[in-house]
Formats: sequence, structure tokens, C-alpha cells
Amino acid sequence: MAKKNAFYAQSGGVTAVINASACGVIETCRKHRDRIGKVYAGRNGIIGALTEDLIDTSKESARAIAALRHTPGGAFGSCRYKLKSLEENRAEYERLIEVFEAHNIGYFFYNGGGDSADTCLKVSQLSEKMGYPIQAIHVPKTVDNDLPITDNCPGFGSVAKYIAVSTREATLDVASMAKTSTKVFVLEVMGRHAGWIAAAGGLASGEDMELPIVILFPEVRFDQDRFLAKVDAMVRKHGYCSVVVSEGLRWPDGHFVSDQGTRDAFGHAQLGGAAPVIAGMIKEGLGLKYHWAVADYLQRAARHIASKTDVEQAYAVGKAAVEMALAGKNSVMPAIVRKSSKPYRWTIGEAPLKKVANREKMMPKSFITRDGFGITAKCREYLEPLIRGEDYPPYRNGMPQYVRLKNVAVPKRLPAFELR
Amino acid sequence: MAKKNAFYAQSGGVTAVINASACGVIETCRKHRDRIGKVYAGRNGIIGALTEDLIDTSKESARAIAALRHTPGGAFGSCRYKLKSLEENRAEYERLIEVFEAHNIGYFFYNGGGDSADTCLKVSQLSEKMGYPIQAIHVPKTVDNDLPITDNCPGFGSVAKYIAVSTREATLDVASMAKTSTKVFVLEVMGRHAGWIAAAGGLASGEDMELPIVILFPEVRFDQDRFLAKVDAMVRKHGYCSVVVSEGLRWPDGHFVSDQGTRDAFGHAQLGGAAPVIAGMIKEGLGLKYHWAVADYLQRAARHIASKTDVEQAYAVGKAAVEMALAGKNSVMPAIVRKSSKPYRWTIGEAPLKKVANREKMMPKSFITRDGFGITAKCREYLEPLIRGEDYPPYRNGMPQYVRLKNVAVPKRLPAFELR
Repeated sequence: MAKKNAFYAQSGGVTAVINASACGVIETCRKHRDRIGKVYAGRNGIIGALTEDLIDTSKESARAIAALRHTPGGAFGSCRYKLKSLEENRAEYERLIEVFEAHNIGYFFYNGGGDSADTCLKVSQLSEKMGYPIQAIHVPKTVDNDLPITDNCPGFGSVAKYIAVSTREATLDVASMAKTSTKVFVLEVMGRHAGWIAAAGGLASGEDMELPIVILFPEVRFDQDRFLAKVDAMVRKHGYCSVVVSEGLRWPDGHFVSDQGTRDAFGHAQLGGAAPVIAGMIKEGLGLKYHWAVADYLQRAARHIASKTDVEQAYAVGKAAVEMALAGKNSVMPAIVRKSSKPYRWTIGEAPLKKVANREKMMPKSFITRDGFGITAKCREYLEPLIRGEDYPPYRNGMPQYVRLKNVAVPKRLPAFELR
Repeated sequence: MAKKNAFYAQSGGVTAVINASACGVIETCRKHRDRIGKVYAGRNGIIGALTEDLIDTSKESARAIAALRHTPGGAFGSCRYKLKSLEENRAEYERLIEVFEAHNIGYFFYNGGGDSADTCLKVSQLSEKMGYPIQAIHVPKTVDNDLPITDNCPGFGSVAKYIAVSTREATLDVASMAKTSTKVFVLEVMGRHAGWIAAAGGLASGEDMELPIVILFPEVRFDQDRFLAKVDAMVRKHGYCSVVVSEGLRWPDGHFVSDQGTRDAFGHAQLGGAAPVIAGMIKEGLGLKYHWAVADYLQRAARHIASKTDVEQAYAVGKAAVEMALAGKNSVMPAIVRKSSKPYRWTIGEAPLKKVANREKMMPKSFITRDGFGITAKCREYLEPLIRGEDYPPYRNGMPQYVRLKNVAVPKRLPAFELR
């Protein structure tokens, strides 16, 4: 088999550990120099491939690549750019394959969520038809934890840990203030359609420290009266409570509570602002003093409190992607397989992309308490191992030492290509 | 000198390290059992003293008290309850002294900001007049860092570290997304009148990692056109930027950008919501896609990323307060004295309460860059030592192990007292 180069790109919203997957891909490729040439990264994701704006990762030191493991954000840039269907825009897929051919790229590692799994699948399919074989491997990543087959998604565990820890801390704060001042703390968290991140707020309360937490899941139809009654009961019993509200919470008519009317490149509603709406209800309906926070990017960028399990898994899927490529696999995704919860044991399995692309995994009903405001023991058993362990970045003078790569461009070989 | 008991109370907004001061007070008192009897804590701050709702801290194990050092929030409850002037409500001050006398309390340790320094001073003054001597020592605490005389305030360093780290992380995130999506990230931080916390956002960028950060200080009159021009220039140059906006930012007419029209018990405006206002301006004025976050309680409760310097100083002022009391001092506050910045060396000095009460320390003009959107080298030199060092709490199963005390009540000896 002739030696081919590899292409790696990051897609969609970045996470605290997506660079750990990049680290896994690049370090593993470097260990197989006999089979894999250089690793080129797409500058700003798939756009880098379309515009032939490739980054030569061989210009980075082993030390810089190793530091990706503890660096949040997307080291090569990501993008929100969804390729249309083959019928609608075949030219883009053909361009990708032209670029891969021009740079002798035989391996396509695409690090993203459901949309990019779909792109990955299409590239693989078209490359066969076009007679330039590309092994396309999808590397899972999404804080939303909504990819199917894999037990969980790299990126989620660290957000979950951040939300669980932050909710515990803020709830201790509101507990202190409740006698004369704030009685309800409202925290808005990410999760457009699936309530996985909101569920993590439930971990703030545990056997070691019971705290009154009310969760508003996107999966549960919002009933304002029942919600206010729940908060009222919590405050009467404990003197205070915290509310963890998903940005994806919807009114009974289906509209997002937080809908600001704007859309992103994938056509998804751009959300943000459920917390002040909920806080206003609490003030008006119950007359209670509140504070509210919107974690937004802080939650998915918080490498300083990343889950060790998550970091290890993010690295492992990157490494496994390369190993699958070397084993001749195509159109697959390394998936995290849970062997047991207590003790937590996991391994890496293999999922066909056909079964991954464009499917969202919702929270099972059995994970939400009957009243709709909390997590069940089953949910807790699922979530707990994912936030386990700390993996602190190195610090200097009080600040985390994150790496910025040189990101040296690969000389272009093709004429320019106009993006749609 | 007859052996007296001590009283300790927490006042106002709590911090990630106020319990470290409590730990310093209690552990130091326990080392001087020959001179100091029990330490009683006020349940929910000074209200606990007024209503004779005292907590017997001698019921807590040495281990539980030690764990206060790494536990955020206020372990005994705090309150927002400002005693009126002696003329307006002498009965409350007299009640305090009655309660102290009934429980043989000779030491009053009050852990709070400017308002509580004032209360502390008045208690000391009145106790002399009433012939029941109380040594009143104020233990400084405020995330706002606005107490005079002391070089900095315990609680501030940890918020500053949280904001600096979070801003760095979120800025790496927006940098990754900027090509096709979010170009500006807006983070709202606390600081009603003084821009100390906002200034900490400037530490996100340093010699080790330069990042485009725009700061909106409460000290600088907000000029929307100049602000938008600054953001525009940053985005043109770097492709993205972050904006750190103080909740205390004011319109040219003096109104808070975030004013929601509500007031707290001290009559201060309750703020929150500058970030969405600023984000909206960026969208409307520049057409740039944004994300915004409001850190709110998360920032001051974030014990998981506390500054080691801050934790040490919070403990030290608690310890010093007791040592001052034992040395016969009255109406004083332990103050942090900076001996040098490079290398950072500090010690504990003594400030008379008359010079502390009801004074706010603003940011010096020399700490803000000429354009009003950044911090100077002088400011950086001041801030950097305060965020230095990490002081992680212990974790179990992925969650920080914070302590909750038993908070056993001391039997009452007096008739009930009606709060105003």
C-alpha cells in the first residue's frame, strides 16, 4: 500500500477536549510514519479543505502536539458549514476529493457531531464512485451528547462536570444568602434538543451533599404553573433552591423560551436567554428574589475543570480513528462502549456511519423523574462515571498554559474554489 | 482577664474563600482556649446575633472546621441587613450588646465589606458607652475589592482568577468559531461601582498568550460609538474578540446599562443583564454574530479554581483578627500590606475601622489604558500576584467535597426580639 497523507478537521461547536482528540490523531499518525505521511489539518474545518487552506502539522513540535491534550477550543479553527446533499451541491464533494488527491491524502478524519458524520459518510461514498479511494473516519465530538450508538460523546463529560460543580458551588452561595436576599438561583445551560447537560446539574446534589435542584429539560413540555409550584415547595422546605434550565426549553406551543429569532448556518435557532425569562417568572409569580447566570461558552471551554474520563476518551477516539484507518476501515466512527458502570469500565468499539449520521439521541424517559424536574438513579448511574477524575492543565503565574500552534500553511496546488 | 467567648458572623455577598477566614478565626481561637472560650457564629449573619440565634462551633470536629478552608459560600449563612445609624435604631445596637453579654461574648469578629466595617465600628463605640466592653474586629471580605487601606480584599483574587481563566478559555473558543460563526464573545462580570473584576478579564491576555480583549469599566463613561469602533477594529485585525463588561457599566446619563429596576436591602440597584444589551449593540451596529454569558454567582462561588494567594490571605486575616483581639485591639481590621510585587511579598497590617467604614476604593486612573478599554502594565503588576497559585479542593467521584456543618444552636437566654 502506497504511503498516503492524512487530513484532519474540526467541525461545529468546539469543546474543552476536542484538541485532545486532535492530539490522539496526530500522535498516533506520527507513530506510523511507515504507513501515514503527514497530517494536514483543515484551517477552520472543512472550509480549509474546500479552499485548499491546509495546515502542515508536521511543523509542530512533539511538545506542542502533546499540549493539545490540555488546550480547549479548536486549535486549527472549526466552522459551522454544512455541505448540502450530493444532489444539491455535488461540486463541493468533488472539490474535497480533488484537494485530497492533489495532496495525496488517503485518510479523512472528521471530528464533529451528527452533521459532520453525514458529511464524512458522503465523502466516503463519492470517493468510491470517483475512483479516488478515501478512508473516511468520523471522530465523535459534541457537548450535546446526542450522537447515537456511542455510549457518550467526548466533550460532554467535561461540560457535565463543569455544570455539576458550578451548580453545587452556586447553590451553596444562594443557601447562604436566602435568609434575607436571593432565594432562587437560575442557571442556563446548553443543549438544544437533548437535556443531557441540564441533567448534569442534578449531580450537584448527591449522597455526599443533598441540595434542592430543579431541572427544566427540553424533553419535558414546560408547564409554568407546575414549575412555580415546584420552586415554591422547594423554597418552603429548604429556604432556597437552584434551577438548571436548558436553552432548549420550549413553551407548550413548541417555541423556545429563549428564542431570539436568529438562525445559525445550519438553520438551527440561535438560543440564549431562557434564564432571565425563568427568573422573571419566579419574581412575578412567587415574589422571590433571584439571581441568574448564563454559562454559554464558559461551560464548553472550561478545560480548567475538565473530566479526566472525558479527556482520556477524547484522546482514545482520536487514536482509535487512526488505528481503524490503518486496519483498512472506512465509513466508521470509533464509539465508546460501556462495559460496566460500577466499577466504570469502557472500551472503544466501531459504529458504521450509516447508523450515526443525522440521528439525535434523546434522554431516555427513564432518566427523568416522574414529576419532570429531576434525574433518576438510573440517570445518575449513567452520568457519574463521565465526570470522574480531574485533569488539570499546567499553570504559570496563575494562568493555564494553553498552546497555540504555528499553523503553517501547505503550499496550494490547485486553482481557487469559490464557496457557495 | 476573665475568659470570654467570641462571636463570628458573615455579612453580605459570600465568596469562594469567606469560609477560609472563618476557618482562620475558629482554628486560632481553638489554639487559645486559655483566653477564648467558645466561638459562637451568627446564623445568617448579624441577624443571628439580633435574634439570639447563635451556632455553637465547638460542636464541630477539627476536621470539619479545617474543611471550611476549601468550601465556598457562607457556612453559617450570611445576610444583607444593614443596621441603621445609632440615632435611627439604637435598640438594635443595644440588643446586640445584650446578646453578647448574655452569652459572655467579649470578641466580635465581623466578616464583610464596607457596610459591616461600619456596623463593627458602631458596636465597638456603643459597647464602651454601655459599659460592656466588646473588642470588635472587622475581617475584610469582598469580591468587589473596594475596601480602603488593605492592598486587596480576600475573595477578590479568586474571582479575578476565575474571570481571567474563563475569559482566556472562552476567547480560544470564539477564535475557533470566528471564520463562519461567532466573532464576539461578551462576558458580564460583577463589580457594582469599581472595575476590579472587569480588569481581571485583561489577564486573559498576557505575554504567554496574546488575545484580543475589550473591557468595559464602570469607571469609564460608556460611549457606544467608540466602543463599536473598538470592537470593529479588533475583529478586523484578529477575526474575533471578547468583551468583558462590568455589571456596573453606566450610560452617559448615569443609569446602569443593566438596571432592572429592583433594589436590594441596602438600597443598591440589583444588576444583571448588561451582556445581552452589549451583544445586541454589536449585532445591530456591526452585524457580527455574538455569544454572551453572565457569570453571576458562578464567579464568586468558584472555589474549584480559587487563587492560592487568596485562600492564604483569607485564612491569614481570620487568624490575625483573633491575634489582634488577644493583643487587646479594638475597632480595627487586619489589612493586607504589599511589601513588593516582584517577587510578591505581603504581610498583615492593621487598619483603624474609622478609616475603613463606608469608603469605596475605586480603580486608579493609571490602571486603565488611555482609550478606556484595557488595563495598563501597572494594573497587571497589581493583579497578577493575586491570582497566583491553585488550591484545589478534594474530589470524590468527580465532585468537590465541600463541608456542611451541623450548625447546632446555642440555647437562648433572652426574650425574643422583633426585627424591624
